[in-house]
Amino acid sequence: MDLYGRDFIVSQDWSLGELEELLDLAAKMKRDRFSPRWTSILQHRTFFMFFYNPSVRTRQSFECAATELGGHAQFLEPGAMRLRTATTAGETTEDAAKVMARYAAGLGIRILEDKVPFYGAGNDLLREYAHWADIPIINMADDRFHPCQGMADVMGWAEWCGEGPGRPDYEKLRGKRFLLTWASGALARSWCSVQEALLVASRFGMHVTVARPDGYDLDPQVYEWTRQNCADNGNDFRITNDPDTAYDGVHVVYSRNWVTPQAYQDGAFQKKAEQDKATAVPGWITNAERMARTDNAIFTHPMPIDRGMEVTDAIASGPRSAIYDIAENRLHVQKAVMALTMGNL
Amino acid sequence: MDLYGRDFIVSQDWSLGELEELLDLAAKMKRDRFSPRWTSILQHRTFFMFFYNPSVRTRQSFECAATELGGHAQFLEPGAMRLRTATTAGETTEDAAKVMARYAAGLGIRILEDKVPFYGAGNDLLREYAHWADIPIINMADDRFHPCQGMADVMGWAEWCGEGPGRPDYEKLRGKRFLLTWASGALARSWCSVQEALLVASRFGMHVTVARPDGYDLDPQVYEWTRQNCADNGNDFRITNDPDTAYDGVHVVYSRNWVTPQAYQDGAFQKKAEQDKATAVPGWITNAERMARTDNAIFTHPMPIDRGMEVTDAIASGPRSAIYDIAENRLHVQKAVMALTMGNL
Amino acid sequence: MDLYGRDFIVSQDWSLGELEELLDLAAKMKRDRFSPRWTSILQHRTFFMFFYNPSVRTRQSFECAATELGGHAQFLEPGAMRLRTATTAGETTEDAAKVMARYAAGLGIRILEDKVPFYGAGNDLLREYAHWADIPIINMADDRFHPCQGMADVMGWAEWCGEGPGRPDYEKLRGKRFLLTWASGALARSWCSVQEALLVASRFGMHVTVARPDGYDLDPQVYEWTRQNCADNGNDFRITNDPDTAYDGVHVVYSRNWVTPQAYQDGAFQKKAEQDKATAVPGWITNAERMARTDNAIFTHPMPIDRGMEVTDAIASGPRSAIYDIAENRLHVQKAVMALTMGNL
Repeated sequence: MDLYGRDFIVSQDWSLGELEELLDLAAKMKRDRFSPRWTSILQHRTFFMFFYNPSVRTRQSFECAATELGGHAQFLEPGAMRLRTATTAGETTEDAAKVMARYAAGLGIRILEDKVPFYGAGNDLLREYAHWADIPIINMADDRFHPCQGMADVMGWAEWCGEGPGRPDYEKLRGKRFLLTWASGALARSWCSVQEALLVASRFGMHVTVARPDGYDLDPQVYEWTRQNCADNGNDFRITNDPDTAYDGVHVVYSRNWVTPQAYQDGAFQKKAEQDKATAVPGWITNAERMARTDNAIFTHPMPIDRGMEVTDAIASGPRSAIYDIAENRLHVQKAVMALTMGNL
Repeated sequence: MDLYGRDFIVSQDWSLGELEELLDLAAKMKRDRFSPRWTSILQHRTFFMFFYNPSVRTRQSFECAATELGGHAQFLEPGAMRLRTATTAGETTEDAAKVMARYAAGLGIRILEDKVPFYGAGNDLLREYAHWADIPIINMADDRFHPCQGMADVMGWAEWCGEGPGRPDYEKLRGKRFLLTWASGALARSWCSVQEALLVASRFGMHVTVARPDGYDLDPQVYEWTRQNCADNGNDFRITNDPDTAYDGVHVVYSRNWVTPQAYQDGAFQKKAEQDKATAVPGWITNAERMARTDNAIFTHPMPIDRGMEVTDAIASGPRSAIYDIAENRLHVQKAVMALTMGNL
Repeated sequence: MDLYGRDFIVSQDWSLGELEELLDLAAKMKRDRFSPRWTSILQHRTFFMFFYNPSVRTRQSFECAATELGGHAQFLEPGAMRLRTATTAGETTEDAAKVMARYAAGLGIRILEDKVPFYGAGNDLLREYAHWADIPIINMADDRFHPCQGMADVMGWAEWCGEGPGRPDYEKLRGKRFLLTWASGALARSWCSVQEALLVASRFGMHVTVARPDGYDLDPQVYEWTRQNCADNGNDFRITNDPDTAYDGVHVVYSRNWVTPQAYQDGAFQKKAEQDKATAVPGWITNAERMARTDNAIFTHPMPIDRGMEVTDAIASGPRSAIYDIAENRLHVQKAVMALTMGNL
């Protein structure tokens, strides 16, 4: 299986075998973090990080990943780069991409929310870069998907169902029940992480439930892929608006605030309107009472967490919270992605 | 003596023996800057630099230090990081710190002036990070202290009293007279560097004099520590408001502008008010006439210098100015701090 | 020939032999990009990049260059550095330069347009840093010159006239005809790249034509140097205002928008006024019809390109466009500059 040169824009683009190869390498890297097997893979090579939007975890973990592979991640803010947009003169994506391919081993891009004019435009831009650049394009979160987060999630779930950190057991996930539930709060969060989680949970053989208030459905295409992934595994996919019974008997609980399908309107991200809408739907929080309905579920969240709104402190910091392990996994899966697509292993 | 994992938030937290170990390694590193003994200490490791406030020397010297130890310093601006504050939703310090500890070998933080709501809040934040993160927290200047500057200062004084660059003699400092004098100017400078200098000079056995106009006293806790340090060494600590006689017979002159104890009020740093106050107190400048009162003193300053206000060009660029050597020492002491606390030597 | 410690502020400061040595090393580096001969030259060393103005290619290529030489390029924005200016207190250039020389192996500076009060002030600042710092100062584009772009240009022309990428033949340039033509558009571009191109083309033995509308002349000093360089080689230098016949029989076409000599007025860069002026002069574009007048010329441009204004897509993306090869050459020539001036080869 040769992943050299491949883009990583959404997990659904890769076969299950390819995702498993990536996760297998990530676990090896986690077990032996600074082994000389990895520390020269990107030696003297550059990975460009294009941050149209700022980030916490993504910047830290990608830049660490490049460093640990012996390379260097350049932090670039395209706002300072005189690129052509709908309203300003500047360089075309073709020209920018073709030159960057001369300099770097790979290019990560993060673009969503206020930086895209309509839903899907961020993902379109990644695919345009992938079209022009003959180096791998890595999705660092766009308006639709967040594949590195999805890989970190499933690795963490499999560690908690398996033998702990660095010892994931993906077979144990098969037939388990995954709950993705909307959560209250005024953060007006994007869909990328939760949509990727649906794709990944269903690919890896879990039953999937989405719990959300009416009006908070996600991308129909993602629902369709999730439904198909579940069907391929003989599993259930269901959607409910009951914030309590949704927890019954599940093994993994993922709660997070997200916006409505009306979030992108009139060429802009409607943050204020979405915050107002969500504020009118209180009480969707993961707490001890709801967790008691589960089959001793683990709690998962891509962070940063809006504590007190999305989840109580008792659960987020409790004995079944996988959040820090999963945050750490961002580093390991990203090292594996970079090594496989840029390292010519 | 094992300093691995230790925080470095103020020199007073470390024993004299620990500080001497740090300074001993710094001198070795200065004498043999790119020796293979040092260049792999942080190989493939990441040091996070959190700059709530921008800086000149601190950014340059810490990033160089990580590079020279074989590692990488990530430049992070927390303003872009969606951290929780008194007025905005976001990530808690606990969550941010625990995840960073998964990625990095250490975390440096700079926070003072307009980024803190009251005096001491910056130092409190460092201690909160130190509480949650099980990696070393390094103070890159907060509202109270600046230990790396203090170490660079004392190393420079001991080089000038000893046998020159890389050959400090700390015994020669014992019994010498140190003058810290307020200086005129409209820069409204923070207390961190000068307070650290008082602690360090008194720890290393110098008599200490503070000269300042009435109303320009520093943190009472720092005065108390300095008084105690001096007493432990059988030395004098005195405070005067005479900008001339203060120079009589001293061996090290440190002049710098700083703010009054009223600088932090109503949740904000009162820069304009402090500038106005200081402008009403002209004439506190280190010049040839005053230096003639000393015992052939060296001139020390943490830079950047406000030439013409804090000190004349003739003194700042003169034959007894230690300023560039001390600025260089920032690099060496920070390499030593990182090596000892993060390098598992 | 020992270039260690030399500044690189304009190609005209270096002898032809020195430029050839630089270009020879750049070609070797291009042919064997990650050879161990180069990857330790700046190991553990820091190169400071001072970006008064943001950039695309320059940031990417210099930071890659340092990485590929084993070193690290620090990205610094002097706006955050409390440096002294005409209107604000702060650190003098002397102090900033002398301290940076203690930390780094070299210093790159980019300053032009809105960051300079009058034409030439940017170049003056570079020369002031060069005066005070005993490390090499590398021009990353100022208001007058852009020597690394000029070297990348001539390397690319010689590759296209020679045996292709990494196989430049500078002898083949001798006696060839170089056309620099002004181009329409509202980008109000600075003079640095085109002026450096005139100096370089004339140094390397080409006949030189400048085509521009009346009122769009460049720096008289650059014209004079170009005229002298051409005369030294027995070549022609001419200036025309005919946007068509200028192409007759030339071998290299370089089209680009630039500002009038009135661009810097009243202490500021008159971007809007220049855009308005240029908009009144349409039709100066490199297209197939004009290229048909040439002797099968290659098309050259330092990028980013204003497609549709400076050049048609058919030419910019056509079979005789050298733009991507030249953009790539920025990396190689900058590696060679850094290796020769900072690497103690």
